[in-house]
Amino acid sequence: MLLILIIGGIFMNETIKTQLNHKTIREFKDERIPEEIFKTLMEVARRTPTSNGMQSYSIIRVKDNDKKATIAEICNQEYVKRTPELLIFIVDQFRNMMIAKEKSGNVENARDMDRFFQGFTDACLAAQNVVVAAESMGLGTVYFGSILNDPQKIIDIFSLPELTFPVVGLGIGYPNQEPQLKPRMDMRLRLFEDKYTVFENYLKEIEDYDREMTEYYDLRDANKRVDSFSDQIVTKLKNPVIKRQEILKVVRKQGFDLKI
Amino acid sequence: MLLILIIGGIFMNETIKTQLNHKTIREFKDERIPEEIFKTLMEVARRTPTSNGMQSYSIIRVKDNDKKATIAEICNQEYVKRTPELLIFIVDQFRNMMIAKEKSGNVENARDMDRFFQGFTDACLAAQNVVVAAESMGLGTVYFGSILNDPQKIIDIFSLPELTFPVVGLGIGYPNQEPQLKPRMDMRLRLFEDKYTVFENYLKEIEDYDREMTEYYDLRDANKRVDSFSDQIVTKLKNPVIKRQEILKVVRKQGFDLKI
Repeated sequence: MLLILIIGGIFMNETIKTQLNHKTIREFKDERIPEEIFKTLMEVARRTPTSNGMQSYSIIRVKDNDKKATIAEICNQEYVKRTPELLIFIVDQFRNMMIAKEKSGNVENARDMDRFFQGFTDACLAAQNVVVAAESMGLGTVYFGSILNDPQKIIDIFSLPELTFPVVGLGIGYPNQEPQLKPRMDMRLRLFEDKYTVFENYLKEIEDYDREMTEYYDLRDANKRVDSFSDQIVTKLKNPVIKRQEILKVVRKQGFDLKI
Repeated sequence: MLLILIIGGIFMNETIKTQLNHKTIREFKDERIPEEIFKTLMEVARRTPTSNGMQSYSIIRVKDNDKKATIAEICNQEYVKRTPELLIFIVDQFRNMMIAKEKSGNVENARDMDRFFQGFTDACLAAQNVVVAAESMGLGTVYFGSILNDPQKIIDIFSLPELTFPVVGLGIGYPNQEPQLKPRMDMRLRLFEDKYTVFENYLKEIEDYDREMTEYYDLRDANKRVDSFSDQIVTKLKNPVIKRQEILKVVRKQGFDLKI
């Protein structure tokens, strides 16, 4: 039985209500997630669609506080330390390579970038599935893409073997804050029919969105500098993280054949 | 109000029930999705978490039947043609690069692999969020990772500009089949605490799973050759798609600086 309501032109059920209400949570109650809830999240990860059925990702559950502290440093986000659950999703072609090796000895193509991207996709799909499941149970979540500020260090911390690679971190816990919904760019600029649309003047197209973002930051913290979306892009492009730019060097070091 | 039940040690609500019941649907009813439902899916995409708040992905909605037919050829899956909705999720750094260019002229770092992977991650998270939303409304879904069998051709079909790249295709519609749940590998082999675990003998560890998979295929189609999971891996490694192995060549051609 599926219950569907229409509210403001949008179909609504419990799942979609959860999804439309997504906010990043950075402060959590000092309370562990019950193990049954964690088990449920992992069952959801297990059932997530996976490229070619190959299940070529794994998850590291970070319990060690020293490791959490190191990750907080890498991420440059001190609240990483205080996430009740911290998961690192990784590309994992090591496992399937070992299975193929034991079975046939032929693992010639286990190292190609097709395998890498399949694992990367798998890891992302599983992470987002876990996010939706967690939020449906009243938990809050925060992604840490910033683990890639230093992928080699993440590899070292968890002794990741060849043909694995960190993709994204995910913090989960009971929310101790109620942030506002963050404005998002109109889909008119991001959804195209049959052909990519190039606009004449992007700044004009995002004028309203820029204003919305400024108001949002202003309301969030009146003492902080207030940036529009376009300002944020300019700032980010001015301040790259070198190790993130050079991510493929570490991908190759992990045994993948870039074939370029 | 969140309703939570425990069934077999797993917490259960409508969302998780949907997620645990995920099956790939390959045959759909000849029926379009109502536009309000499509709009809802796009609103879910819009609200999906995004790296650095940068929203660096876009979606191409494929309506043109000739384009669908070409994609079916690329994917080598003729049922692509018959998906009522076909979406292509793409990395999109072109839009933000244009915004930065108009705003400041400085776009030096828009081309690095950090931007590429942020967009790739964004595209995957949005796709999975749409999958969960679609399934919660009784729709069925099918991923087409196989669009990457020929990324250049996908780029050409949709006139994708520089700094964009196809990530994954997604078919959506009302299911016209009721497949069985596909067995999945135990999380024991995929979830690690604080450190990656290397097992002594992988074939032994997946013995039960190999058997489960063989039975699953046997039940699905008694006339087809029945492969265990380990057999499948060996077969896939023997038959690589060259263009998928060399994906980074096309990434570079799209204007990204591999920095290797």
